[in-house]
Amino acid sequence: MPDILQSIHIDAPLTKVRTSLATIDGLAAWWTRTTSGDAGPGGKIDFRFGEHVTQVRVDAADPARVQWTVLNSNPDWDGTRMTFELEPVGDRTLLRFGHRGWREANAFFGHCSMKWATFLLSLRGELEAGEGRPFPDDIAI
Amino acid sequence: MPDILQSIHIDAPLTKVRTSLATIDGLAAWWTRTTSGDAGPGGKIDFRFGEHVTQVRVDAADPARVQWTVLNSNPDWDGTRMTFELEPVGDRTLLRFGHRGWREANAFFGHCSMKWATFLLSLRGELEAGEGRPFPDDIAI
Repeated sequence: MPDILQSIHIDAPLTKVRTSLATIDGLAAWWTRTTSGDAGPGGKIDFRFGEHVTQVRVDAADPARVQWTVLNSNPDWDGTRMTFELEPVGDRTLLRFGHRGWREANAFFGHCSMKWATFLLSLRGELEAGEGRPFPDDIAI
Repeated sequence: MPDILQSIHIDAPLTKVRTSLATIDGLAAWWTRTTSGDAGPGGKIDFRFGEHVTQVRVDAADPARVQWTVLNSNPDWDGTRMTFELEPVGDRTLLRFGHRGWREANAFFGHCSMKWATFLLSLRGELEAGEGRPFPDDIAI
C-alpha cells in the first residue's frame, strides 16, 4: 500500500520534538490550533480544520516513536496510520514521518504529501524559531 | 513500485510554469544553478549539485506535461522518472509532480520526498516572487 514518507532534521533536542508530537499544546502549535483530546497512549485526539475533523487513536507515544491510527476523517484517510520516528543526530533530531496504508496513490495522496511537508516545516519553524504555521495560518499549496 | 507524488498551486499562467520546467534557465532558477544541456524532447540535461551530477533524458516536453528518465545519478534514482503535469485553475496553475518507479520506499525515499517539496516551494517562490531557492541556496532539511 502506498505510503507518504518525509524526513527532516530539526535543530532541537529529541525530548522537545517529542513534546510537539505527544502533547495537545505541542500539536496545536504546528498542525492545527484547534486540537483537543488526549495525546497519551490509548487516547483520542481531535484535529479540527474549520468544519472538518480528523480523529485519531494514539497507538504509541514512546520516547522516540509516536503512532496514530485515523478513526474518522475522510474516506482516503480512514484506517491509515501516521508514524513519527525520532533519532538524535548530534545536537539535532532527525524526524522520520510516515502517513501509511493509503489504498491508492491518487491525486489527494499527492496533495497530502505536499501538505505534510509544509506542516513538517511548520513544526521545525515552531521548534527552532517559535514560528509555527498551524491551520488556519498554514502555508497554502 | 513506490512513487513520490506532490501537488502545488502556483499563481502563474501555465506557459510560465512550463518555461520553468522545459528550459535550462528556467530549471536553474529553482532546482540547481548549475544546470546544463538540452531541455527539449530527446535532450539530455545535467543537474550538478557540487560533485554530484544527475543526468536525465527528456522523454516529453509537451505544453502541459514534462517527463524525464534518470540516466545517471545514484543507484536509488537510476531508471526512475520525473513527471510534471500542468493544469490551469483559473489564473493559476496546478502542478502535479511525480518521482516514479522507486525500487523501495527506503530512508532516502523519505529524504527525497521532503526535499522535492522544498524544491517545489522554490519553483513557486521563483515564479510568484523571483525568490527561487535552487542549490546551493536550497532549503536544508
